[in-house]
This record gives sequence, structure tokens and C-alpha cells, in this order.
Amino acid sequence: MRAYKKLRDFVGEENYYDDEAHLQAYCYDATRDRFKPDCVVFPRNEDDVCKVLKYCNDNLIPAIPRGAGSGFSGGALPCNGGVILAMERYFNNILEIDKKNMIVRVQPGVVNKHLQDAVEKEGLFYPPDPASQEYSTIGGNVSENAGGMRAAKYGITKDYVMALRAVLPNGEIINAGKKTIKDVAGYNIAGILIASEGTLAVITEITLKLIAKPKLKKSAMGIFKNIEDAMNAVYKTMACGINPVAMEFLDNLSIRAVEGKFQKGLPIDAGAILITEVDGNLNEEIEYQLLKIEEKFKDNGCSDFKIAQDEDEAANLWFARRNVSQSINVYGKKKLNEDITVPRAKLPELLSRIDKVGKKYGFKIPCFGHTGDGNVHTNVMVEDLNDIEKGYEAITEIFKIAVELEGTLSGEHGIGLSKAQFMKLAFSEAEMELFRNLKKAFDPNNILNPGKMGL
Amino acid sequence: MRAYKKLRDFVGEENYYDDEAHLQAYCYDATRDRFKPDCVVFPRNEDDVCKVLKYCNDNLIPAIPRGAGSGFSGGALPCNGGVILAMERYFNNILEIDKKNMIVRVQPGVVNKHLQDAVEKEGLFYPPDPASQEYSTIGGNVSENAGGMRAAKYGITKDYVMALRAVLPNGEIINAGKKTIKDVAGYNIAGILIASEGTLAVITEITLKLIAKPKLKKSAMGIFKNIEDAMNAVYKTMACGINPVAMEFLDNLSIRAVEGKFQKGLPIDAGAILITEVDGNLNEEIEYQLLKIEEKFKDNGCSDFKIAQDEDEAANLWFARRNVSQSINVYGKKKLNEDITVPRAKLPELLSRIDKVGKKYGFKIPCFGHTGDGNVHTNVMVEDLNDIEKGYEAITEIFKIAVELEGTLSGEHGIGLSKAQFMKLAFSEAEMELFRNLKKAFDPNNILNPGKMGL
Repeated sequence: MRAYKKLRDFVGEENYYDDEAHLQAYCYDATRDRFKPDCVVFPRNEDDVCKVLKYCNDNLIPAIPRGAGSGFSGGALPCNGGVILAMERYFNNILEIDKKNMIVRVQPGVVNKHLQDAVEKEGLFYPPDPASQEYSTIGGNVSENAGGMRAAKYGITKDYVMALRAVLPNGEIINAGKKTIKDVAGYNIAGILIASEGTLAVITEITLKLIAKPKLKKSAMGIFKNIEDAMNAVYKTMACGINPVAMEFLDNLSIRAVEGKFQKGLPIDAGAILITEVDGNLNEEIEYQLLKIEEKFKDNGCSDFKIAQDEDEAANLWFARRNVSQSINVYGKKKLNEDITVPRAKLPELLSRIDKVGKKYGFKIPCFGHTGDGNVHTNVMVEDLNDIEKGYEAITEIFKIAVELEGTLSGEHGIGLSKAQFMKLAFSEAEMELFRNLKKAFDPNNILNPGKMGL
Repeated sequence: MRAYKKLRDFVGEENYYDDEAHLQAYCYDATRDRFKPDCVVFPRNEDDVCKVLKYCNDNLIPAIPRGAGSGFSGGALPCNGGVILAMERYFNNILEIDKKNMIVRVQPGVVNKHLQDAVEKEGLFYPPDPASQEYSTIGGNVSENAGGMRAAKYGITKDYVMALRAVLPNGEIINAGKKTIKDVAGYNIAGILIASEGTLAVITEITLKLIAKPKLKKSAMGIFKNIEDAMNAVYKTMACGINPVAMEFLDNLSIRAVEGKFQKGLPIDAGAILITEVDGNLNEEIEYQLLKIEEKFKDNGCSDFKIAQDEDEAANLWFARRNVSQSINVYGKKKLNEDITVPRAKLPELLSRIDKVGKKYGFKIPCFGHTGDGNVHTNVMVEDLNDIEKGYEAITEIFKIAVELEGTLSGEHGIGLSKAQFMKLAFSEAEMELFRNLKKAFDPNNILNPGKMGL
């Protein structure tokens, strides 16, 4: 038995737990995998993090940083046991909203939506909005490089991280990056910590760039007879220079699932719908963008284009998109959901090939998601749990298609445990070896979140 | 004598040089430092790069990748001798302009301006525009993370790099990043290669994001009685949500130097001028932005605000900015020019403290540059070369001020050799140690561009 109880000396009795209830409470994330840690600690401050990590490093104990545990790839799961560093109790403060420089400095346990709300009160705007925004934390968002619906125009978490403060496994504190837009002094350590899934360092402070909140926005929906038309419309709209905040899609299975559950009058015979939002500071900008989008949509087979006239109508348009993920559960007991991403112009081919995979294996594969940036949530729905292996075969085939189309295994969920076995589809042995060497540069004893990313 | 001549077997007789003329031709960059290599090779293709690097790695020979040699920090100088891998002869092709996905794929030796022109012909836009754009190469731009005037709105090189292909010192080829906007599979290797100054791998292919070229642009100039007012105007303009393409400044010494040389009718008693450009697709956007800028400028002590009415007038406004760097040579024989960067709201304090440093040491220190992103080109002008040490003392003091104000040693020029000695002002021993470990992860034998970045 490893000497976990010593950790109480660092964080205090009231912040150390190894009782069954806590081990259960910290064994999950948004995957269905479960791994129990050996104990859970709540570091009170950076000094606690340093001491806990140094102790783990000296005693070869796995240490797993954790935010809200809302990840979709097992990134926060203690698959080799060890200590969970739960950051939500004490590291949940917004430290500074610097209006003059349009920057916010936060602790990693701050919930994404709390951050958004706080800066919007000051007329500022933090765009990254993962679907988990109501509960996922900024530390987790940075560690997985979270995306969201607004990525089409505003990019993803990495585009907003200016600086990170973090503790290395040896207990040393590092500052990476600056509160400046330009900074080329030293290696880009912040850049490598983003999306590193808690395997390199424990982030203790995050400095984010903000932008001014656009004054106006408007939503619209286009209905398409077939999905290829819709996918063509997506990339042709973007390629003509229009930059919508969001450009989301639902395929026919997704539309039917939402309509079946909520009866909203959705077009159940449509091959796909596209839902889009534009923003700006002037009415002319809004009108210009909507006009161009309508033009490109109609040039590409859109049979009906509706512009929301007020906030209620907009909310109504977005209802289908917001409720699709739960609705498609009607198609199977087990949902194998992945978030492959391809260059936008490859979307028509991607969707057509996914359809063929569904037919070949006999699964329904509803697809929806962030077409504006080529990111498709693809869901292999397994009805009979005896077919689960076949489900994974279908997923493997879909990953291969994504890689063939110059895409990636994961646009925003990360690799974690769930996709670890697929890394070899996407990376050469030289690349995997480089990943391992990089991991060693930060964490020579492999104590930080070991067993992740297929390393 | 190291066995350099063996390299002829890899690249061919006609691509290997060790004659004095070539060694001289490849011993310089835009600094005044000179270091002769032992030989110069022109790799014809990626396979040549692999063979040369593997040979260098096996025989512990320094290998220094080089584009145009236009860097300001000695990044391409062979300070420990070795082989120059000159990429300009064969790696100078634009491989693909992918209009559908708004992406361009280039070899590292393509000149920045050639790339800009080629994509603009297709209605696309590559924003990063370092002052060296007419001759610097994209490989160098990526390796130093080049900025430019348009960074205020459009960001810097790193914001456009989607993927890199590169050769590791052991001769293995890696692909880093994807042609997708979102990609969270594996560590962000592309992110760490950017700004790594050729110390980690030799880049052989670069995939860049493009945007649609804005249809309209307009320039304006504001004249300020004193420089603090101008610096306040900069950050207050940006903080109100206006996003000019460029927001550049010249201080009084800079204005006088340009006027002395070119007699353009510049306001020689002004404390500073700000020159700005806005762009967009609609006249209303242009007008709205200029109106807001004028308002903020005048609220902050701007005595005169001129909007260029046509392209000639715009070129005239920009003349001072484009010619300031050469003009200030009037103030001294040796120019110690640095590119410190601070959060924008710290600009007033930065400029006021630089002024005091000038008075303390008795140097003129003209300042100009990219205030829109907090990046100030500060030039300690040394008239009597016996005072050069005192000049470096003044520079050291300025670096300390930048770091105190939460800024960085370098916004866009890089560390290379010139700033290597100052790294300890900005980074802790733990951070330097991490940099060294990271270097080892890529280059265990330290053959790639050794001696740089103060490692």
C-alpha cells in the first residue's frame, strides 16, 4: 500500500479523502468508464499542489488533476489508481478582469459559463462555448483544448490562452506565456500544455484573452433536401468570405429524433438542416452576412431559409441543435460518440462515407455538429449490446475515413483513454516516440495522469 | 576536421560549398554579428534533409537551417560552425492553394510577400506582414513567430500555422497538426516548433490558414502633443471594442528623424503620432470604426485627426512609419534595437520609463512600432562606439522594465544570440531547465542550431 495518508500533512485532514463514497464520486467522467482512485485531495493553494506533486514524484504515485470530470474521453480517470487532485473546491476564483488590456486571469476550477457571465457584465466576451459550458471548468477546457459552437468564427480555447502558471511533477512552479499578444522569448510552453490532458503539469492559473462583446446577433436556419447539398453549402459559404459565429448541422436521423421527442414542427423529410448565427456591431453587417448566407444556401439546394425575427424565434431555431444529443438515444442503448474533424470541403464525402459504414454494419449513425469548422459529432448507436464489438469496428472504419480525408481523430474531446487505441491510425512510430520523449521532458517518472493518449 | 565533404554524396556536388565566398555569404544575418559555417548545403528535397541531418546527428556536427538570413536576433548564425542547410534554392514552392478550405501549403523557402501576392490573386489573404516581408521566408517567419503591422487585428504567424512537416535530428520525418481548425489528437508539436528558432527540427512544409481578403480599407493619422496621451489613446481605443488592422506610433525623435531626411511636412513638435488602418467589407463598417477611433483619440489629447481620402493619401500617411527605421540612424553609429512588448495599458508607463533611461545614460532612444499589440521597437542610439557597453547597460535596464511591466524581451524578433544573455531576466531556473529538457526531447545530441536561446 502506498503511503497516501502522508498527503494529509500537506492539504489538511479536511481535504484528504480515501473513503468509499469519495472514491466512487471521483471514479467517473462523461464516458461510461469507471476507475477508482486511491484517494482524493483538494489542494487549497499552489503550495499544496507543489507538495502533493513532489511527494507523488518521489514516491512514484500517479497524480491526476481533475476539474468537473465532464470530459468525453476519460482524460480525468485514474486508470492506474493514485491521487486525484480535485481543483474545484479551492481553485475556483476569477482573480482579475483587466478591462484595460481585455484580459482575464482565473483559477483552473472556474466554470466556463461563470467566466463568460462575469466578463460579459463588463462588456467583454470569452467565445469558447463547449456544450459542457454550464459545468465544465476552464482548466479542463485548456487541458482538452475545448471547442464549441462559436469556433467557426472565434476559434477554440487555444486561441484565447495567453499564459499559464503550472506546477511540474517535481514540484517546481513555471510561468508560461505573457499578458502580451506577441511573445517569442523561449519555447512555447503554454502552447504544449494546452490539450496535453493533464499529462505534463498541473495548471494553477490561466490568463485568457477577451474580445469586446458584439452588440448585435441574429440566427437563421436553412432546410436542405439532401445532406451533400448542405455540406456543399457550408464550405462554399465560408469560402466566399462570410464568417458566421456558428454553422451547425443536423442530419435526417438527428432531425427525426428531436422531432419524435419534442414535436417542434421540424422538417422530418429534410436530408439536413443548417443553423447559423451571425454577429457584429452594425445592422448593415448583420444584414450583409445573412444575405450572403441565404444566397449561398439557395445556390446549393436550400429549399427554405428562415431568419429568426426575435430572441424567442432564435431560441426556437436553436432548440433542435441543443437537444439533439439526448434525443438520438432513441436509436440505441449504447452511443459510441466521436468528434472527428475534416477540412470543410471534405464534409460531403465524409458524410456520404459514414452513411455507407452505417449500412454495412447495420447501425444507425446520426450525425450533427460544428460543420463551420469541419467538426462532426458522429454517433454509432448500438441497440443490442452483444453487437458492441461490431460497433467499435464501425468506429474504427470511421476514424480511418477521417484520417484519409486529412482529418483528425478528435476535434475537441481529446484522446484520453477512449481513443488511445486509435492513435496509431493517425500517428507514425516516429511521432509517437516524439510524444513519449516530450512527456519525459516534463514528467520523467510518468506520474502525471499516466496511461493516457496512447503513449 | 569533421568529415563535411561526405555531405556531397547526399546533396550532389553542385549543392555543397565550402569555398570562402560561400562561407562569407552565409555568415551573416540582419544583426551585425558574423559567424562562418564550415560548409553550406542546398538540400534538393526532404530526403536530402533527412540524410544530412542523420549524418550530422551521428557525427555530432552542428546543423543550422536558414531561410533568407534576415533575422534580427542571430537565429540563423552558425555560432558554433557546422553545416548551413540553405532552404532558399529548392524549398521555394507554393505547393497548393486550397480555395475551398482557405488553406495554403508551402515550402519553407517561399518569401512572405510572394505568398501574400499569390493568395491575394485568389481573393484570399495571409495577414502576417513582418517589415522584412519583401525578402524574409515563411520558414523563418514560423521559426521566429514573426509579427508585423497587421497583428493588432489579425494576430501573428502562429495564428495561421495549421500544420508543419519537419525532419527531426535523427532523420525521421514528422507531421504535426492537420488541415483542420480543430485538432486535439496528440501533443501540439506544431505549436512548439513555432518560435523554436530552428533548434528542434528542420521544417520542410508549412500549411497555413487563410482568410477572405477584406474588400475595403482606410487609413488615418492622429497627432498628439505628448506621448503619454497617445499611449492612453491606443489602449482606450482597443478596449472600446474597435479592432483596427494596425495601430502604429512614432515618438518625437522618430518624427524628427523622418522629417529631417524626407521633408514631408510632419508635425515635428508632436509628442507622438498614431497611424491606423481599418478594414471591412462595408462602407458602414469603415466609417463606424474611424468615427470611434477619432472619438477616442480626441478624448485623449489628439489635436488633429486626418483620414486619408484615397490610396495616395494613405501611402503618404504611412510613409513616415515605413521609413522611420532607416531615418533614426542619424542619431548614432550603432543602433541597439529591441522589440520589447507589454500589455497595451502599460504603454504609457513603458514609454515614460524608457525616456528616463535615455536621460540617465545620455543616449537618444527613439521608439516606434506596433502599439496596437503593445510591441515597441526601442532603439538605443550609440554615437561614440566607446560607449557601447553603456548602451548595453541601458538596454538591460529597458528589458528589466519590460519584464516588470509583465511584458516580454521579444515580441517578434526572437532570442537567438542577441538576447540570449537576457533570458535569465525573464525566466526562472526551473523554466530554463524545462526549456533544456524540451530541447533534449527533440535533439538529444544538441546538433540543431546549438548555442541559441540561452539554453
